[in-house]
Amino acid sequence: MISNSIVYIVLVASILALTFAFIFYKQMMKEDEGTDLMKKIAAYVRKGAMAYLKQQYKVVIIVFIVLAAIFGIMAYFNLQNGVVWFAFLTGGFFSGLAGFFGMKTATYASARTANAARKSLNSGLQVAFRSGAVMGLVVVGLALLDVSVWFLVLNGTGLLKAVGANNDLITITTTMLTFGMGASTQALFARVGGGIYTKAADVGADLVGKTEYNIPEDDPRNPATIADNVGDNVGDVAGMGADLYESYAGSILATMALGASAFATSAVEGMQMKAVLAPMLIASVGVLLSLIGIFMVRTKENAGMKQLLGALSRGTNTAAVLIAAATFGIMYYLFGKETGDYANMWWQTSLSVVVGLLAGVIIGKATEYYTSQSYKPTQKVAESSKTGPATVIISGLGLGMLSTAIPVVTVGVAIVLAYMCANGFHIEFTAVNLSRGLYGIGIAAVGMLSTLGITLATDAYGPIADNAGGNAEMSGLEPEVRKRTDALDALGNTTAATGKGFAIGSAALTALALLASYVEEIKIALIRVGQTTLTIGEDVVDTAHASLIHFMNYYNVNLMNPVVLVGIFIGAMMAFVFCGMTMNAVGRAAQKMVEEVRRQFSTISGILEGKAEPDYERCVAISTKGAQHEMLVPSILAILVPILTGVILGVPGVLGLLIGGLSTGFVLAVFMANSGGAWDNAKKYVEEGNFGGKGSDNHKATVVGDTVGDPFKDTSGPSLNILIKLMSMVSIVMAGLTVTCHLL
Amino acid sequence: MISNSIVYIVLVASILALTFAFIFYKQMMKEDEGTDLMKKIAAYVRKGAMAYLKQQYKVVIIVFIVLAAIFGIMAYFNLQNGVVWFAFLTGGFFSGLAGFFGMKTATYASARTANAARKSLNSGLQVAFRSGAVMGLVVVGLALLDVSVWFLVLNGTGLLKAVGANNDLITITTTMLTFGMGASTQALFARVGGGIYTKAADVGADLVGKTEYNIPEDDPRNPATIADNVGDNVGDVAGMGADLYESYAGSILATMALGASAFATSAVEGMQMKAVLAPMLIASVGVLLSLIGIFMVRTKENAGMKQLLGALSRGTNTAAVLIAAATFGIMYYLFGKETGDYANMWWQTSLSVVVGLLAGVIIGKATEYYTSQSYKPTQKVAESSKTGPATVIISGLGLGMLSTAIPVVTVGVAIVLAYMCANGFHIEFTAVNLSRGLYGIGIAAVGMLSTLGITLATDAYGPIADNAGGNAEMSGLEPEVRKRTDALDALGNTTAATGKGFAIGSAALTALALLASYVEEIKIALIRVGQTTLTIGEDVVDTAHASLIHFMNYYNVNLMNPVVLVGIFIGAMMAFVFCGMTMNAVGRAAQKMVEEVRRQFSTISGILEGKAEPDYERCVAISTKGAQHEMLVPSILAILVPILTGVILGVPGVLGLLIGGLSTGFVLAVFMANSGGAWDNAKKYVEEGNFGGKGSDNHKATVVGDTVGDPFKDTSGPSLNILIKLMSMVSIVMAGLTVTCHLL
Repeated sequence: MISNSIVYIVLVASILALTFAFIFYKQMMKEDEGTDLMKKIAAYVRKGAMAYLKQQYKVVIIVFIVLAAIFGIMAYFNLQNGVVWFAFLTGGFFSGLAGFFGMKTATYASARTANAARKSLNSGLQVAFRSGAVMGLVVVGLALLDVSVWFLVLNGTGLLKAVGANNDLITITTTMLTFGMGASTQALFARVGGGIYTKAADVGADLVGKTEYNIPEDDPRNPATIADNVGDNVGDVAGMGADLYESYAGSILATMALGASAFATSAVEGMQMKAVLAPMLIASVGVLLSLIGIFMVRTKENAGMKQLLGALSRGTNTAAVLIAAATFGIMYYLFGKETGDYANMWWQTSLSVVVGLLAGVIIGKATEYYTSQSYKPTQKVAESSKTGPATVIISGLGLGMLSTAIPVVTVGVAIVLAYMCANGFHIEFTAVNLSRGLYGIGIAAVGMLSTLGITLATDAYGPIADNAGGNAEMSGLEPEVRKRTDALDALGNTTAATGKGFAIGSAALTALALLASYVEEIKIALIRVGQTTLTIGEDVVDTAHASLIHFMNYYNVNLMNPVVLVGIFIGAMMAFVFCGMTMNAVGRAAQKMVEEVRRQFSTISGILEGKAEPDYERCVAISTKGAQHEMLVPSILAILVPILTGVILGVPGVLGLLIGGLSTGFVLAVFMANSGGAWDNAKKYVEEGNFGGKGSDNHKATVVGDTVGDPFKDTSGPSLNILIKLMSMVSIVMAGLTVTCHLL
Repeated sequence: MISNSIVYIVLVASILALTFAFIFYKQMMKEDEGTDLMKKIAAYVRKGAMAYLKQQYKVVIIVFIVLAAIFGIMAYFNLQNGVVWFAFLTGGFFSGLAGFFGMKTATYASARTANAARKSLNSGLQVAFRSGAVMGLVVVGLALLDVSVWFLVLNGTGLLKAVGANNDLITITTTMLTFGMGASTQALFARVGGGIYTKAADVGADLVGKTEYNIPEDDPRNPATIADNVGDNVGDVAGMGADLYESYAGSILATMALGASAFATSAVEGMQMKAVLAPMLIASVGVLLSLIGIFMVRTKENAGMKQLLGALSRGTNTAAVLIAAATFGIMYYLFGKETGDYANMWWQTSLSVVVGLLAGVIIGKATEYYTSQSYKPTQKVAESSKTGPATVIISGLGLGMLSTAIPVVTVGVAIVLAYMCANGFHIEFTAVNLSRGLYGIGIAAVGMLSTLGITLATDAYGPIADNAGGNAEMSGLEPEVRKRTDALDALGNTTAATGKGFAIGSAALTALALLASYVEEIKIALIRVGQTTLTIGEDVVDTAHASLIHFMNYYNVNLMNPVVLVGIFIGAMMAFVFCGMTMNAVGRAAQKMVEEVRRQFSTISGILEGKAEPDYERCVAISTKGAQHEMLVPSILAILVPILTGVILGVPGVLGLLIGGLSTGFVLAVFMANSGGAWDNAKKYVEEGNFGGKGSDNHKATVVGDTVGDPFKDTSGPSLNILIKLMSMVSIVMAGLTVTCHLL
């Protein structure tokens, strides 16, 4: 029999990831940071970034203390168990830590990347990519550390018993979900705050510098340049790190919880434990394969762009193919000896994982098609600049809306297929099929994210290269260096498209899995308050043995129930209102930045001739203050709305809210990410010399598109993925409250 | 006992509406059309508009013939009854007719309004408003004509029996819904085609004329001016007429069908018939009250803006208050003598109507708050022009997204309250409560739209005034005239906000009511193919007597069913993809227009000095061709997707699709309408002399916003309301196919 001790493998994988992250970090630090000016600029950026992160953590800590206190009070009133508050805190802590380490590495790596790029394109790639890998490995390492340690503690000790809760696998896994909520909360603040910061600076710098004064990007004469570079670090690095920590941990935790509930009543001994272990094991093997992939990213010294792209793709593709193969091995090891009902489970569930991987690849390719200037759609957006900025906006919005078709259909097909594969190709909606099918959907998400170690590396090295370019520009290095870092940045955009596909797709699947966990938590809450039976029509069912379908019928969670429908409406609205708030936040903060930059240009004499130094710090302070101030309301709204919905509309309303938020949020997120990406690259396409090239009116029109796209793709869009999951997590943690008190 | 003959009252109301429409039309025609130049320009516009409408009808007729043929074939294979194809055709015919009459009136009224405005503001208002009233009365008159005649024919003759169907009220009312599908199909083509036409011309005219050459709006030197004015007629008049015909008829038909099913098993004789009659009666009384309201819109000859606005509001408010009171009378007349279960029904159902009316008013006020330049939000969008077009776009998008909160929460509360009122203030989800509650929701929508005769008049006179302004400008009338028509136009924007609130809110409620009709049609289809029992768990239920809840359980239409969830995803996506297609269509058509206008400016010498006449017809032809070409794909998609979803995912998938489309579509529609309205008025606010006024860079930035807003508020946004209902109607008509053949 497979024993619990297998979790030590997960712990080893985690330590392995963290060790290699440390080695890569040390390697990077050994590189030369370049000239004194380069060092000085890098120090500026690093200081600004660290200062911001400290400010952000100060705000977030207060939110965490308040929430932990609420969970403590809930535990006192028997509405939640007594471990939740602490699990919540660790999730937030590790998520923040992942962002912090990633950012620290990035801020040390930028000047070193620029310096390496003076040698060759390949040297630049090596430094940037290895630094990105630090982030990737830290994220997966910390997540697996948190997961494995908590599991060992809760399963191995009597901690849950000590606080008066059950000690079964269902309670253990749903308790662990609350550390997912901690991670989501931290991630939302990091994404929203970082996103507002970076885009306020970026928009502000571009609007005055590029559009009004015609000076190039990252020009040291622009007072917002340092803030812009700081923004890349706090938004695109620290924000993304916290975000993906949340996605990765969330998918594993949700699937563990599904495994615990799907096989709770299985007659075969150990099935439940094995189902809980499977997602952890897949993730652990994924760490190994990611490492292999990372080491495969190397080329000859004189390699061109094409070889570099080839090297990157080789790394991610190899890891993806290997994890697909390895999954069959892992599943055979766990379930290969089963007979009867479970005889084919090992390969059927493995197929679900393959479905998830394929879906991620398709979404990634579709993202690339719609957002890369190598393809028609983005070129058409660039072409529409011939008739001015308005048509650039119209065509970019149109493109984004159309681009939702392939990802949504793909996720739809993946949901059905993952469900069917896990059920031996049956679609019938029975209690057993449903829980095994949902487990299939969850494990498909785990599969998608299992090689995050390397996919995140390909994502994270982009902003490092971007910053290296900034450093090169500001320290007046040879134009060749800037060209090389730009090439690396562009390369990163293409590989990042695949990464984004995996992130968005997995969010949709994970959110579905969390729905089941919500119902499971409702069950626990009902039992906790003493409701041991459910009366459904004329039947009476034991709460403890009620299936998901029983709960659907008990609470009338069907599409004719007006309460469910109202919940769906509110969920759909939440996605829009949240984006509206973050968009406006960027708009407001950017406006302040524009005014400051204009003020400096007009009052500091000699600034435009490069004779006087701009007041960089003031711009950094404006972004910091703006982000800190603006991130609170939308983030707290995301926490409050599910609670209020529960208290007013009850369980069916909450489930409606989650589905409405998930469906609309998913589509809206794809729309915003792709519109933003297309605008960015349409501008690049014009800059490459098409439709009039740099400095033309057409170029100016595409800069307007790019500016609008900034909050789309880097603030509002990516925050939606977190919003969707955070609302589910909050609902899960608040289930006890919803069950005992609701208006309708 | 209340008898069927009451329907003759509806017929009388319909004839009354049409008679007064004819009288107002004749009155308007007696007015003087002004100078020869004014007549010539009006004739140009009229000719272009009629030519376009003919072209559009040519395309639409083919679509209708194909669809009618499909319904004929379905009837042959026993998948639908043999009346449907013909009912479908009449719905399309009358919807088109309403648009045609409204537009004919508008094109005759514009020069006359301009001429009357030479006398005074009030004279201008009278001509424009009475012409708008023609449209309002034609729409409600034709709708009630179609409804009452069909009901008399189906209920009074053995037509349904003759084609082998049942002759009960449920079959009668669901058959009548298919004429709703005809109306929706026509309306979608009219909205999409007209919307693309008008916005291509508008965007084209503005981008070159205003932005590049700095010549004013409606300047006769601009080759796209005539096309722009034609566009107002085919989009904002004909398109809106067909659209609201569809909303009005749809709400009545859906509620009749709900009444038939909710009281089908009632032991009290005549209840079912009375429930079917109630929505028709409310609408009929609404016609009378609308007439009273229309006659109240008059002021002293020397009235200022404020008095005019007062006069308009007095008209609509009086009609609204009176219909609320009258509803209690109607309901007392119908249900006042009931005892037992139905003793309080008369006033409880009346309260549902009041809920609907109030919700409409709140949404209207919220729309006004977010889109009028008298309030902060739009002023802030105008202010953001200080930092260029990009921040105008960002803040307008942010405003639109935030503005979804109030309408969605209002509709949510209205759904719950209308449901509870109709159930004697119970929310419990039982079969009886559900059907009566849904009936309450449906009749709330009927209440909202019951005074459409006057609210549509306040909507439709706006474009007439707009065109009058165009005519005044082009025929070189005194600037005072243009000022007056502009004032009338602005006034229209404010009153139209309320109208839009009613239209959007009623669409959401009607769509909910249609869900129940869909399930009812599924029941009929199951019986038709011989499935007389439903096995639900261990129970067996007679199909004929199964409740809505039985169907929910039979088909597992709950939020854990992956098929339902996939349907919801697809529905959410459909709303976005549809908007993306129409946005791109406008972008493409506008680009062609821009190129043509630029070509004329550069090749026709003397055009800018006003010495040579531009080639107006060529621009008209470009818009006509563009609209015709571009409207097909999105419209056909709206018909195909529900059919495909039914064939692949079956009944639960279709219900998911409809809910996903409804929730996301509703929120997206509000977002787009309000962003567009705010941009429009932000531009007007700057033109009024704020932030630099006309001609400043800030003004140019707001023109970009206005241009982006054009397809938002006049093409994609309003089409969504129709899309939502059309998808439901298609599903209802195709229920027979879904039941007999589906993949999952």
